[in-house]
Amino acid sequence: MSGLNQRSLLLTQGDPAGIGPELSLRAWLQRKEHSLPPFAVLSDPKFLERVAQGYGWKVPVKVVAIEEIGTVFPDALPVIPLGVTVSAQPGQPNAAHAPSVIESIETAVRLVRAGAASAVVTNPIAKHVLYEAGFRHPGHTEFLAALASEADGHAYHPVMMLWSEQLAVVPVTVHIPLSKVPAALTEELIVLTGRIVAREMRERFGIANPRLAVAGLNPHAGENGAMGTEDGAVIAPAIETLRREGIAVAGPLPADTMFHARARSLYDAALAMYHDQALIPIKTLAFDEAVNVTLGLPFVRTSPDHGTAFDIAGKGIARPDSLMAALKLAARLGRS
Amino acid sequence: MSGLNQRSLLLTQGDPAGIGPELSLRAWLQRKEHSLPPFAVLSDPKFLERVAQGYGWKVPVKVVAIEEIGTVFPDALPVIPLGVTVSAQPGQPNAAHAPSVIESIETAVRLVRAGAASAVVTNPIAKHVLYEAGFRHPGHTEFLAALASEADGHAYHPVMMLWSEQLAVVPVTVHIPLSKVPAALTEELIVLTGRIVAREMRERFGIANPRLAVAGLNPHAGENGAMGTEDGAVIAPAIETLRREGIAVAGPLPADTMFHARARSLYDAALAMYHDQALIPIKTLAFDEAVNVTLGLPFVRTSPDHGTAFDIAGKGIARPDSLMAALKLAARLGRS
Repeated sequence: MSGLNQRSLLLTQGDPAGIGPELSLRAWLQRKEHSLPPFAVLSDPKFLERVAQGYGWKVPVKVVAIEEIGTVFPDALPVIPLGVTVSAQPGQPNAAHAPSVIESIETAVRLVRAGAASAVVTNPIAKHVLYEAGFRHPGHTEFLAALASEADGHAYHPVMMLWSEQLAVVPVTVHIPLSKVPAALTEELIVLTGRIVAREMRERFGIANPRLAVAGLNPHAGENGAMGTEDGAVIAPAIETLRREGIAVAGPLPADTMFHARARSLYDAALAMYHDQALIPIKTLAFDEAVNVTLGLPFVRTSPDHGTAFDIAGKGIARPDSLMAALKLAARLGRS
Repeated sequence: MSGLNQRSLLLTQGDPAGIGPELSLRAWLQRKEHSLPPFAVLSDPKFLERVAQGYGWKVPVKVVAIEEIGTVFPDALPVIPLGVTVSAQPGQPNAAHAPSVIESIETAVRLVRAGAASAVVTNPIAKHVLYEAGFRHPGHTEFLAALASEADGHAYHPVMMLWSEQLAVVPVTVHIPLSKVPAALTEELIVLTGRIVAREMRERFGIANPRLAVAGLNPHAGENGAMGTEDGAVIAPAIETLRREGIAVAGPLPADTMFHARARSLYDAALAMYHDQALIPIKTLAFDEAVNVTLGLPFVRTSPDHGTAFDIAGKGIARPDSLMAALKLAARLGRS
């Protein structure tokens, strides 16, 4: 087991009181049916053993060195241990869990930056729990970008893509109130996002000439200014700039007619102007299988498109579909 | 052929230079395969004959009195003639077409209001063509509401619903710039819309206890105020009011997770806060078959969910799916 193609995936622990641990075990149990790529969880092996025992699942947990992941994976769940022990009750978030959550992420980034793993897949975390413990980043993705910047001094602009077999879509603005979207939507932001998406569609997704489709902000993409000015004043010039850089971009397109099957066949990735414009179509089409991919980082990072789900943690009913899709996509992108 | 269930549908001509005429003929040609309900077109019979001849389609056109529609329909396309002749080149809108467009709509409303027909189905019109001819209503639907008000003095608040077998969704605000949505979205407007939707789901769709789902405005429905205040300050109180009136309402729900199949099974109609929030999911799911239904009028009105499509008019390639779905839904709703 050597060579680039054999490098394995690192799966962070996520919040130990959420559904991450049970999904990690369940994904390993389904590794054959779903042809999952080898991965190791960065967590406390004793904690994962107790979770498996609680469900009566036969998951042999084995502490490994990173180069052993591929050989161990068929017969046991490879675990790269943390420096802290983990103890958590499902559905009961606790600031005491923060050190393991953070160490798991930091270790994953360090290992993938060192070239020892091909990609990072992150289990969900709960920001408010980490805030109680002194965490100061706006979110999971920003923390990953900060860790990458600390390592090499470069400033990264992470871009969230939601990906499924049917649709890849990027919200240009994300977690802000709808009323703040028009002001936040600048030509520069659209151009920067479009560049990163085009580059990563080429370099990581292996699409030589990626076709982007950019949504308008207003109904009917503003109908030539009759229903809003941003489509013509902000989005169209951004598209022109991207075209001058040689990127194939269509738009601004009326958002309502760009996500049905025939329309989707005309582009490789869509840029949406705000959260729901991006997430409504993909979650309507691929609710269980959508994967969150972070573009713009110096390594591949995917994650399931759901949260910690404290309300159902520990019940064994959470579906591992999105985590399994995240693992497969990470393996595909990590080959580049 | 008598009695309420035999009352027929009236199909307006729409813009004669758009795809309405060819779709009307094509729908009649497919009346058997699609079990279409009997309908008559309100137009110039000579015009429709020429359109049919132009395509080489065998569509016998027969001028009928309204009570003859049902008996004639199997063998010929029933037409209720207008007082004007119509002459139009496909794809070439012209203000000279306006009188026939307007008379067709006025006649349909008069007949349905008199109880002579069960419902009105409208072919698409082009507002800018009518404006040149002095038309002063903001749109097709507002014109219908004005005609209804002229007849009985009542003020109607028309509500647009997009309907398909998979999803029925109502945008509370419609054709306004996205930046104007937060201010336009009042508690009163949401309550008024919810009442009309609930009433018509009962009275016209025959659902005894309709379940409504109301979307939030902001990402994650505002996440308890962390991403916008309208969900808590405007939408939630409106929902409370509707609940006090005995209506089953869920929400405000995160808009991105309310349109996948499992989520849709929990409600009969969704209220979205703005145009794209409503139209993205339904056009993603049912691009060709979605129907526009106007609620809140004193008669049933449906229309295909597309425009005049001047760019493809006359080529014979426009799909009649949405018009046929509009005819079927009108027949279903018109039985009430």
